[in-house]
Amino acid sequence: MEIQDFKSVVDAYKIIFFDAFGVIKSYQGLVPGIEKTFAYLAEQQKEYYIVTNDASRSPQQLAESYHRLGLHAIVPDRIVSSGMLAKEYLDMKVNDGIVAYLGTENSAHYIDSSGLHTLPVSAINYTNIDQVNALVLLDDEGFNWFDDLNKTINILRNRTIPAIVANTDNTYPLSGSNEVAIAIGGLASMIEAIVGKRFIRFGKPDSQLFMFAYDLIRWQQDIKKKDILMVGDTLHTDIIGGNKFGLDTVLVLTGNTLAADAEMRIRSTGIMPTYICEDAVVR
Amino acid sequence: MEIQDFKSVVDAYKIIFFDAFGVIKSYQGLVPGIEKTFAYLAEQQKEYYIVTNDASRSPQQLAESYHRLGLHAIVPDRIVSSGMLAKEYLDMKVNDGIVAYLGTENSAHYIDSSGLHTLPVSAINYTNIDQVNALVLLDDEGFNWFDDLNKTINILRNRTIPAIVANTDNTYPLSGSNEVAIAIGGLASMIEAIVGKRFIRFGKPDSQLFMFAYDLIRWQQDIKKKDILMVGDTLHTDIIGGNKFGLDTVLVLTGNTLAADAEMRIRSTGIMPTYICEDAVVR
Amino acid sequence: MEIQDFKSVVDAYKIIFFDAFGVIKSYQGLVPGIEKTFAYLAEQQKEYYIVTNDASRSPQQLAESYHRLGLHAIVPDRIVSSGMLAKEYLDMKVNDGIVAYLGTENSAHYIDSSGLHTLPVSAINYTNIDQVNALVLLDDEGFNWFDDLNKTINILRNRTIPAIVANTDNTYPLSGSNEVAIAIGGLASMIEAIVGKRFIRFGKPDSQLFMFAYDLIRWQQDIKKKDILMVGDTLHTDIIGGNKFGLDTVLVLTGNTLAADAEMRIRSTGIMPTYICEDAVVR
Amino acid sequence: MEIQDFKSVVDAYKIIFFDAFGVIKSYQGLVPGIEKTFAYLAEQQKEYYIVTNDASRSPQQLAESYHRLGLHAIVPDRIVSSGMLAKEYLDMKVNDGIVAYLGTENSAHYIDSSGLHTLPVSAINYTNIDQVNALVLLDDEGFNWFDDLNKTINILRNRTIPAIVANTDNTYPLSGSNEVAIAIGGLASMIEAIVGKRFIRFGKPDSQLFMFAYDLIRWQQDIKKKDILMVGDTLHTDIIGGNKFGLDTVLVLTGNTLAADAEMRIRSTGIMPTYICEDAVVR
Repeated sequence: MEIQDFKSVVDAYKIIFFDAFGVIKSYQGLVPGIEKTFAYLAEQQKEYYIVTNDASRSPQQLAESYHRLGLHAIVPDRIVSSGMLAKEYLDMKVNDGIVAYLGTENSAHYIDSSGLHTLPVSAINYTNIDQVNALVLLDDEGFNWFDDLNKTINILRNRTIPAIVANTDNTYPLSGSNEVAIAIGGLASMIEAIVGKRFIRFGKPDSQLFMFAYDLIRWQQDIKKKDILMVGDTLHTDIIGGNKFGLDTVLVLTGNTLAADAEMRIRSTGIMPTYICEDAVVR
Repeated sequence: MEIQDFKSVVDAYKIIFFDAFGVIKSYQGLVPGIEKTFAYLAEQQKEYYIVTNDASRSPQQLAESYHRLGLHAIVPDRIVSSGMLAKEYLDMKVNDGIVAYLGTENSAHYIDSSGLHTLPVSAINYTNIDQVNALVLLDDEGFNWFDDLNKTINILRNRTIPAIVANTDNTYPLSGSNEVAIAIGGLASMIEAIVGKRFIRFGKPDSQLFMFAYDLIRWQQDIKKKDILMVGDTLHTDIIGGNKFGLDTVLVLTGNTLAADAEMRIRSTGIMPTYICEDAVVR
Repeated sequence: MEIQDFKSVVDAYKIIFFDAFGVIKSYQGLVPGIEKTFAYLAEQQKEYYIVTNDASRSPQQLAESYHRLGLHAIVPDRIVSSGMLAKEYLDMKVNDGIVAYLGTENSAHYIDSSGLHTLPVSAINYTNIDQVNALVLLDDEGFNWFDDLNKTINILRNRTIPAIVANTDNTYPLSGSNEVAIAIGGLASMIEAIVGKRFIRFGKPDSQLFMFAYDLIRWQQDIKKKDILMVGDTLHTDIIGGNKFGLDTVLVLTGNTLAADAEMRIRSTGIMPTYICEDAVVR
Repeated sequence: MEIQDFKSVVDAYKIIFFDAFGVIKSYQGLVPGIEKTFAYLAEQQKEYYIVTNDASRSPQQLAESYHRLGLHAIVPDRIVSSGMLAKEYLDMKVNDGIVAYLGTENSAHYIDSSGLHTLPVSAINYTNIDQVNALVLLDDEGFNWFDDLNKTINILRNRTIPAIVANTDNTYPLSGSNEVAIAIGGLASMIEAIVGKRFIRFGKPDSQLFMFAYDLIRWQQDIKKKDILMVGDTLHTDIIGGNKFGLDTVLVLTGNTLAADAEMRIRSTGIMPTYICEDAVVR
C-alpha cells in the first residue's frame, strides 16, 4: 500500500470531486492546510465540486459554513448534496399532505421552500397522522432521539408511505482523532430493520449523486469521466461509489478510515481506491 | 388460520412457559383477565414459568412489579430472564476492570451484585476507558440516547472487548393498541452494524433461555419437552425459539403481532405456531 | 388496492420504460397479447425503452430473441441493460490482465468485444490466478454451480480485485405460474456474504440504469421525468428504483409479484407503485 | 497476540470440546500429529467431545471415518453433531408427510431411521408437493446445485413449512492451504434471503449444541463450565459460541482462520478467544 502525494495525483485530472466530512472538514473545523488545495486548483484552472452526503442545510448555507471557517473559495453552485436529491424527489413525488421529518428546523426549511408542508416528527399526533404522506430523515440533530425515533417507528407502522433517507452515511468524523458520531443514515437503517420496510436512500455510493454533479459539468463543457477524480475518506460510500460511476478515486486518511486500518479494510472489503493519500492538502 | 380457545389448549400440557410483554402485561398494565389464567393453573396443579427477554431488573423486582399491578401469583423463582444469562456470563468471563452499561441504575444493580464494577456509559472517559473490559446493553431507558449511543460507538472503536446484549427484543408493545417502543435489542443491532463487530446476545429465540428454564424443572421432576407449552406474542423470538427447542407453541394476539397481520406474517416468515389464540386468558 | 386499465394509464405519458422478464416475456415465451402494446405505442407515437437487469447477451442479441418469439417491434437501440453498464465499467476501470466470469460464453463475448481478456471461472488455476484483475457475474447459466461457485469463493479469497455483478436480480419468473429461478444476483449475494467483500452491482433499483436510458432520450428531445412511466413486476427493483429516480410507476402482476400477494407486499415493504395493472397489455 | 503452546493450555482443563473440520481434520485428511493429542488426553484421563456442525452422517459413521484415517481413539458416543439436533427436532415436531432434503442419501438415512419419510428435493413434484411438511438442509453434496436449489426455492414459495438447517457453517476448509468450500449453511442463507423466510438453524454458535454435550457430561459426573475448554478454528461459530456458553476457548490456525488474518479478524469482529494456538497438537 503506497501512500502518494496528493498534489502529484491531482495534476493528472481536470476536475476534482471532494467529499466534505473527513476530507475538507471535521465536526470541529477545517482539515489544516486545505485552503491551499483550493488555491492551487484555482491557479491551475481545475474545477472542484463538493459531492456530499448532507441534508442538514442548503448549498448556500453550506458554503457560508465554509466561509465562517475561513475557507472562502467554496461557492454554492459547486456543492452537490444528497439533500438536493431528496428535495427533488419530494417535489416530484409528494404533492399534498404533510412531510414528517427528523432533523433540525434548518434542514426542513430547505425542503420546505418547495411548497411542501413539513412538520417535525414530534408534532405528529392522532389529529394529523392520516395526512402524513412521506417521512424524510434529514439530520441526526434537532430532535430528541428517544421520543422521536420511537414515534417514527409508530408512524411507519400506521401509514404506508415512502420513507426517504436524505443522507446515507452511518457515521461522521468528529475531529482528527478516532471519534465519530452516528449520522442519520445509521439511525435510518435501524428504523428500516425494525419496521421491515424499504427506505428510499439518496447519497453516495448511489450513482445518482455523482450523475447530478456530472450533469452540471457536461452542461458547460465536454468532459470525460476519466478526467474526474473523486476524493473521499470512506471506502463504502466515496470510493466504491466513485469506482462504480467510472471515476478514479483517492482515499484520504483524515476521516472515517484511519491510517492503521486502511490496508486491512481494503483487503477485507475488496474496495480499492485508485490512490491513497494522507490527506487532500496540496503542499 | 383457526383461532383456538386458550383454556382448551392449556389443558393438554403440564407446564406453561409465558413470555411477559405482550402476553401477561404491556407497558401500561396487565392484560385484562390474565390473573384468572394463573388461578386456573394453580387449581389444575400446572406449573408456569415466565421466560422473558428482560434485563431491566432482578427476578425479585420483576415479581414485585406484577404484585403492584395486582397479579400476586407470580413468584421470583418462576421467572427466567435474559438478564440472568447475561449476569451468569459476566460472572464467568469478566474478572476485573469496568463493565460499562446502557440501561437504568436498577438494571446495573442486578449485575453489580456479582461483584463486578459497573459504570454507566456516560461515566466512561479518557481516564478510565482503558479499564473497560466489557460493555453490556441492559435497557432502553436510563440514559440519554444521543449522548450515550454515540459514546458507545466510540468505546467499541477503541477497545476490543465483548459487547453483551442482555435483551434481544427489537421492540416491546406499549399498550393494547398498535404502539410499540424500541427495545435495547433494536439499539444493539444498530450499534453492531455501525461498528462491524459481533455482539453476544442472550434471550429468545436462542435456546439457552429455554434450557435454563427446562433445567430448573428437570431438577425437580421428570418432564418431557412435549409436556411444555410456550406462549408468546412474537413470531421471531417466542415462536421460532420455542419450536426449535422442541416445544409446542401458542401465538397470542395481544402484543407485537396484530390479529390483522398474523396470517400474513406466518406465511411470509414461515414461522408457524402450533396454535393461535386471541389472548392467554382462561375464561 | 385498485387495479387499473393499462391503456388508460399509458395514455398519460410520452415515454414508457418496460422491464423485460415478467412484463414482456417469461422464460417460456412472450406475455400473451404484448405485441398489441407495442403496436399501440407506435400508432400513438409514444416511445418505449426496455430497461432490464440482464447481462446474458448484447442488445442486438436481445432484440433478436424478441423477434424469434414474434415480437418484431423491438429494436436494439431501445434496449438498456445492466450488462451495458458492466461493460462500460470494465472498459473504464480494468486495463489489463484477465477478467474471470460466471455465465455463458455468449454473455462473455459481449464483454470481450471491448478488448478485455475474459476467461470462465472454470479456466482459472494456479498458473493464471495472479493475472485475474476482475471478476464479473453475468448469468446463472453456462457453468457448473458446484464447481464454479466454490472456485469463485477461492479466487476472491486469494485476490483483492473488484467483483462486478452485472444483474442484480435475485430471481426471474419461469412462466406465468408461480415458478421462479435463482438469478445471478441471488448467487452474487451468497458469495458476497461468504467472502465478506463488497461487490459492485449494476442494475435496478440503482438509478444508473435509469439515467442511462434517460440520457439517450435527452440527447434527442426535451423530455421531463414526469413524462416517463416505468412498468415492472418487481417492487424492490423496478418500482422502488423508478420511484426514486422520479418516475411514475406501474406494478404488473404477470411476474415476480402475484396478484394474491401484491397488497400485502406493498404494505409490508412500503414500496408503492403509482398504479397497479394486471398486465402491460393494451386491449 | 500471543501464540500459546496447546499442551500447556489443555493441562488446565478436565474436558476438551473439539470442533472437527479445521481442528482435527480437513477435507483431505487428519491434521498432522493430532493422534498424539488424543493419546495424551487418554493418558491424562481428560475427556474429549467432538462438537461439530455436521449433518452428513451418523455419529457411528463419523467415528468410522476417523478410524479409516488412522485416528482410532474417536468413539461414537463422544461425537455431538448439529445433525443430532436436527433429527431430534424432526422426531418431535414433524409427525407425518414427507421431509424433503438437500444432501447425500447417507445424510438422509440418518434422519430416516426415526421413521420419517424422507425424499430428496429432486424427487418432489406436483404429485407429492402437498405432502411435504418440512424441508431439511443436510449437506452440500449429493445433489445437483442448479436443479435442486432452484426447486427448493419453489417448494418454499408454495408451502408454508419449517425449513431446517442442520449445519450452520458457511464454509469448510478443504486442506491445509487457504482453500475452502461452500457448506450447506452458506447455501441455506442464500435460499432464506431469496424466499424471505426464517429458517431453523442447528449448530454452533447456538448454545443448544454445547448444552447437548454438557448434558451428556453432567449425567455422569459433577463438572463445571470452567473445567471445559472449547477448541475451534472459526471465530463466529466455535469461539463466540463457546464464549457465550461460558467456556474458555482456543482459536487454532489450521482451518478457516489463517495465521496472517487472526489478529485483524479478532480486532474487527470483537470475538476474542481465551487463547490462540497454532494447532491442537500435543507435542
